[in-house]
Amino acid sequence: MSIQKLKVGMAGLGRVGKIHVNNFLHQTPRADLVAAFTPDAAELSWGRQNLEPYGVTLYDDYDKMLGHPGLQAVVLGTATSVHAEETMKAIDHDLHVLCEKPLSTSVEVCKAVVQKARTKPHLKVMCGFSRRFDESYRDVYDKISQGLIGRPSIVRSQTCDKHDPSGFFVDYAAWSGGVFVDMSVHDIDLTLWFFGDDMTVKSVAAYGITAVQPDLKKHNDYDNAVGIVEFYNGKIAYYYCSRMMAHGQEDTTEVIGTEGKLSVNINPQCNFVNFYHPGGITREAPGNFIGRFGPAFVKEANEFTACCLDNTPLPLKLNNAIKAVEIGSYLQEALVTGKQIHFDEIGRRVEKPSL
Amino acid sequence: MSIQKLKVGMAGLGRVGKIHVNNFLHQTPRADLVAAFTPDAAELSWGRQNLEPYGVTLYDDYDKMLGHPGLQAVVLGTATSVHAEETMKAIDHDLHVLCEKPLSTSVEVCKAVVQKARTKPHLKVMCGFSRRFDESYRDVYDKISQGLIGRPSIVRSQTCDKHDPSGFFVDYAAWSGGVFVDMSVHDIDLTLWFFGDDMTVKSVAAYGITAVQPDLKKHNDYDNAVGIVEFYNGKIAYYYCSRMMAHGQEDTTEVIGTEGKLSVNINPQCNFVNFYHPGGITREAPGNFIGRFGPAFVKEANEFTACCLDNTPLPLKLNNAIKAVEIGSYLQEALVTGKQIHFDEIGRRVEKPSL
Amino acid sequence: MSIQKLKVGMAGLGRVGKIHVNNFLHQTPRADLVAAFTPDAAELSWGRQNLEPYGVTLYDDYDKMLGHPGLQAVVLGTATSVHAEETMKAIDHDLHVLCEKPLSTSVEVCKAVVQKARTKPHLKVMCGFSRRFDESYRDVYDKISQGLIGRPSIVRSQTCDKHDPSGFFVDYAAWSGGVFVDMSVHDIDLTLWFFGDDMTVKSVAAYGITAVQPDLKKHNDYDNAVGIVEFYNGKIAYYYCSRMMAHGQEDTTEVIGTEGKLSVNINPQCNFVNFYHPGGITREAPGNFIGRFGPAFVKEANEFTACCLDNTPLPLKLNNAIKAVEIGSYLQEALVTGKQIHFDEIGRRVEKPSL
Amino acid sequence: MSIQKLKVGMAGLGRVGKIHVNNFLHQTPRADLVAAFTPDAAELSWGRQNLEPYGVTLYDDYDKMLGHPGLQAVVLGTATSVHAEETMKAIDHDLHVLCEKPLSTSVEVCKAVVQKARTKPHLKVMCGFSRRFDESYRDVYDKISQGLIGRPSIVRSQTCDKHDPSGFFVDYAAWSGGVFVDMSVHDIDLTLWFFGDDMTVKSVAAYGITAVQPDLKKHNDYDNAVGIVEFYNGKIAYYYCSRMMAHGQEDTTEVIGTEGKLSVNINPQCNFVNFYHPGGITREAPGNFIGRFGPAFVKEANEFTACCLDNTPLPLKLNNAIKAVEIGSYLQEALVTGKQIHFDEIGRRVEKPSL
Repeated sequence: MSIQKLKVGMAGLGRVGKIHVNNFLHQTPRADLVAAFTPDAAELSWGRQNLEPYGVTLYDDYDKMLGHPGLQAVVLGTATSVHAEETMKAIDHDLHVLCEKPLSTSVEVCKAVVQKARTKPHLKVMCGFSRRFDESYRDVYDKISQGLIGRPSIVRSQTCDKHDPSGFFVDYAAWSGGVFVDMSVHDIDLTLWFFGDDMTVKSVAAYGITAVQPDLKKHNDYDNAVGIVEFYNGKIAYYYCSRMMAHGQEDTTEVIGTEGKLSVNINPQCNFVNFYHPGGITREAPGNFIGRFGPAFVKEANEFTACCLDNTPLPLKLNNAIKAVEIGSYLQEALVTGKQIHFDEIGRRVEKPSL
Repeated sequence: MSIQKLKVGMAGLGRVGKIHVNNFLHQTPRADLVAAFTPDAAELSWGRQNLEPYGVTLYDDYDKMLGHPGLQAVVLGTATSVHAEETMKAIDHDLHVLCEKPLSTSVEVCKAVVQKARTKPHLKVMCGFSRRFDESYRDVYDKISQGLIGRPSIVRSQTCDKHDPSGFFVDYAAWSGGVFVDMSVHDIDLTLWFFGDDMTVKSVAAYGITAVQPDLKKHNDYDNAVGIVEFYNGKIAYYYCSRMMAHGQEDTTEVIGTEGKLSVNINPQCNFVNFYHPGGITREAPGNFIGRFGPAFVKEANEFTACCLDNTPLPLKLNNAIKAVEIGSYLQEALVTGKQIHFDEIGRRVEKPSL
Repeated sequence: MSIQKLKVGMAGLGRVGKIHVNNFLHQTPRADLVAAFTPDAAELSWGRQNLEPYGVTLYDDYDKMLGHPGLQAVVLGTATSVHAEETMKAIDHDLHVLCEKPLSTSVEVCKAVVQKARTKPHLKVMCGFSRRFDESYRDVYDKISQGLIGRPSIVRSQTCDKHDPSGFFVDYAAWSGGVFVDMSVHDIDLTLWFFGDDMTVKSVAAYGITAVQPDLKKHNDYDNAVGIVEFYNGKIAYYYCSRMMAHGQEDTTEVIGTEGKLSVNINPQCNFVNFYHPGGITREAPGNFIGRFGPAFVKEANEFTACCLDNTPLPLKLNNAIKAVEIGSYLQEALVTGKQIHFDEIGRRVEKPSL
Repeated sequence: MSIQKLKVGMAGLGRVGKIHVNNFLHQTPRADLVAAFTPDAAELSWGRQNLEPYGVTLYDDYDKMLGHPGLQAVVLGTATSVHAEETMKAIDHDLHVLCEKPLSTSVEVCKAVVQKARTKPHLKVMCGFSRRFDESYRDVYDKISQGLIGRPSIVRSQTCDKHDPSGFFVDYAAWSGGVFVDMSVHDIDLTLWFFGDDMTVKSVAAYGITAVQPDLKKHNDYDNAVGIVEFYNGKIAYYYCSRMMAHGQEDTTEVIGTEGKLSVNINPQCNFVNFYHPGGITREAPGNFIGRFGPAFVKEANEFTACCLDNTPLPLKLNNAIKAVEIGSYLQEALVTGKQIHFDEIGRRVEKPSL
């Protein structure tokens, strides 16, 4: 008897793509990475050195990879702008899909993908919100479910990256959808997880500054932004996103309930070391999201694989991925226009607040 | 030779009044508490037992106390509604004044007091924002001044009380000015301290819920509220105030600069003990503001006394007290109306955001 | 009616003496510092500036101070070598005594003082172990008493000072009694508090090094030492004392019970600030024992005063002060000789371990 | 081209064996687990379900497994009592060996294995001290190497397990070598890493109690023990080991240098969650060593594999494994006999301390 493995193809071998490739190749026992696609020459060359020795077939054409013999699933780590199209093509080829977040920065496009996925309910189509696979957030979810904090009422959540002075994020802002769609979408997804995904937005307001990357303004984006989302059932979420942290990655979340509170990562750390010196006592923080969420990506690969092989439900709904992008877009609009936005109870935009 | 002491009279012997009385009586070496006023019979009785033995003369009439022989200063711990009037009367009697925050929940009334105080520049008139005397916030201010975090750009600050199920705060809300004026005024004052007091508000937005004290709605107030203040020079402050904490007092502040961050009280604690048990590792939080700020009140008493005796500048300007109340009022208005508010560069309200 | 105050005389105006003087003068409402003695010209001069204005009479002769009209109590902050004699003289004058620790570095001398004190049971004679008045240790004691950790079985406790490169401690070591008597005596006293003061020592072993102050060797002393005390009823205490901390004062204690553990000061801090910078996240530690135990000294002054005035039992027995010095002396002997010491069940030294 | 993988056989499929098997099978890309041995029927049955599907051949005879075609390395997770013999047989078969710690509880036996391994210098023979592969300890080692704490002088290190009331450890004590050999051997190994492996022991002393498992006494063992090791070059290490922790695994290490200190795991935690409730703020601790050191075992598997394939030096010397067991045995002897042990500068036991 031999183990059945999921035959996986990877699209995109950039920063995030390499993480997925490594996880599916080396840390997902039930998956078999059989193919990888990238249009980029340097990435192909990297693949020849690092993937071909493990039997991975390289493609410079996505469509051709979809025809790889026996392929069962694709993992998309390509640019956000092609996520939706690639997902839909994969669905056409009857392949399971794990797509890096977001499906698209356009809510309409997101909806089209979800519509498409509904036509093939036997396929597993998942948008990879990595925090859903992190032990700490899962512990928070479990504790909320056990009623340990009463009724969750306020979420404070922030996604804060270590400052990268290279200016990389200026160009990136041209197509990222803006900080609330690119960064806070994680915090919004957590909110939907902890509050429940049937939430209706009542109003949003947001403000931003460009403190260290003034060139972001040309793309209508900001390096620090704060926003509030009011929901209809007496709940509020507020978010902070920043690319300006001196000390490292600091993604903190608090869920405040009527009888208690839960926090995640209130004290960032990259290991268990404290250094005691004449200036005080210092611990170091992770330099990027991988330093914080590396193990969550591995778990994501394994759980996605298991769902495909065993035909079990995915741990997060594709629909939520739209909703998170939608709320992110509202915040981004409020941020760019400087105007608060209001909605009625069935989600239609209205001019004045409903009191 | 004998030491010269400041002859002080105390108005109000309630919760906060008793703290001031104790500090001026027993922990302020250069002050001599000679008189105390309260209209309340129970408080007078307490004073006969606890103050008269130390030579403090009791009054049930504020005006009479102002005529106490040799009186040099009054400390006001009475209800907010009489702060302004009592301050002005004291100024008329040529007395220094330390008034509990806020001077008034009305910005106009605050301004009148400041106007009055300006007529007697030899008097020390201070509104007691206790956090200004706390070692930790002072350390933050010093580190900012040394340039350790670059240009301060974002303030996150919260004032969160332990949940008091007695319903006390429902009645209190009738005259407190609302949560942003009553609670967040401390956070706003810190913001003005750390950002500089010449800040101009550009826009505010705020949202609130009544999660545990629904009766607050009858006073147009909330038990949890979140607000954002955008300033004109590329700075943002955002606030959270709550009366719902299960674990105790949690007043946390972060100042995020272009090159670093400072936090105060990110891990609340009432002492240095950790308890390790089968459920984990637990530390306790202070039950109220005195558990956190007790020593700051003592320092306030001593520094106010020294400024009066030595004719040195007060550590905070009376003007700031107005500004903090003013910004608190804007937030409260945005909270109650559900509408964002905008201002032009000289502080006039405008309909649309200035981009 | 006027409050009755305890008339206190202070002996010694050095480092620790100034702390006591300040506390009794300014922060002990029921005490009246009426007299102060020091043989030191500079200290007398300091006293003329800082104490005489408050009505304190200065003496350069201890015996004369004892005759100060109406004196009721003396506080001894003089050199350890004269503690015992001064205590006994004060008892002869029918005065209450608060003596800085230790009574003496000689157990025999300690015993003589206790003997003397027994002859006048109406007097309050206390050796000031400041940690007994610290909120955190009291919380630990209360939690142990409530049974929260089961049967306390292991104590780990350390007294670690910030490194002082001035060499002050080399001369000091000539008469300090050695690190275990001078420093760890606090940890031993805590052990007796938490384990119970009826403990019998079964064996001790200790080791030390001179890592930064090699000249200590000329006084048979060490700058870092580790020792273990085994007690007869299945309990063990182990101690670390050091004068080499780069980051500041770090006095940590753990009490490990059969069902839980309590720690004090596992994360030293001098305030509630964290500084986030490119090198990590840093908090500062207190520079000396006053930064950690200042409030405990104030409480000590107040509680001693109350016990004298109200004739209530002191919070710690004079006897324990001997026992702590005795155990400290055993550790010091084991440290200097390199030899383990054994005792039988009635406390007599024996050659071999009792198994 | 296809990747070359190390063909590995696993001996022992118990608690630790399963961890190694899982790591070599699923998380060590360059290794190929081809065979597994266990004499235990239940473990064989587990292997048939979990290993055979991945192509692993099962053996109930260790010698037969050694003859598995193409086998290059064995990993020993069997009982300590057979570690030495199995290691030597593997060396005879020209196989690399990764043996769980300790090689043996007998120093003589350890030495025989090292002797044997020296005869085949092309083989990689490693004793798996998992902490050597943990990110935090490696960070400590790097910081020491950079001189950040000056000259390391004192090590405090503890291995403390969550209390297991099942009594499992009573039987286990019959052959474990005792707590210092079984548990503290990790702390001793860290000491040799941080101080340098050329250290000579000068003296040891140790004490223990049986607080929760009195039956341990029949095997001359203890559930809590404290020991001190004095080295000849002015360094001291002191250890605490316990099987009584209520809250979980707490393995803490401090390295104190002349100019700074480093700590590992001073605040145990199993994830990044804090729970705020009326009793305080609680975080949970890992329940066992896997919750703390799981990733270190994975790294160990990968690094061992790389050293075998690439013929690079192992990250720890086999010799150290002896030395750690030797020092552990000295401590255990001092513990059981109640007698301090002394050595001269060339390691011979002497009666009296060398001063």
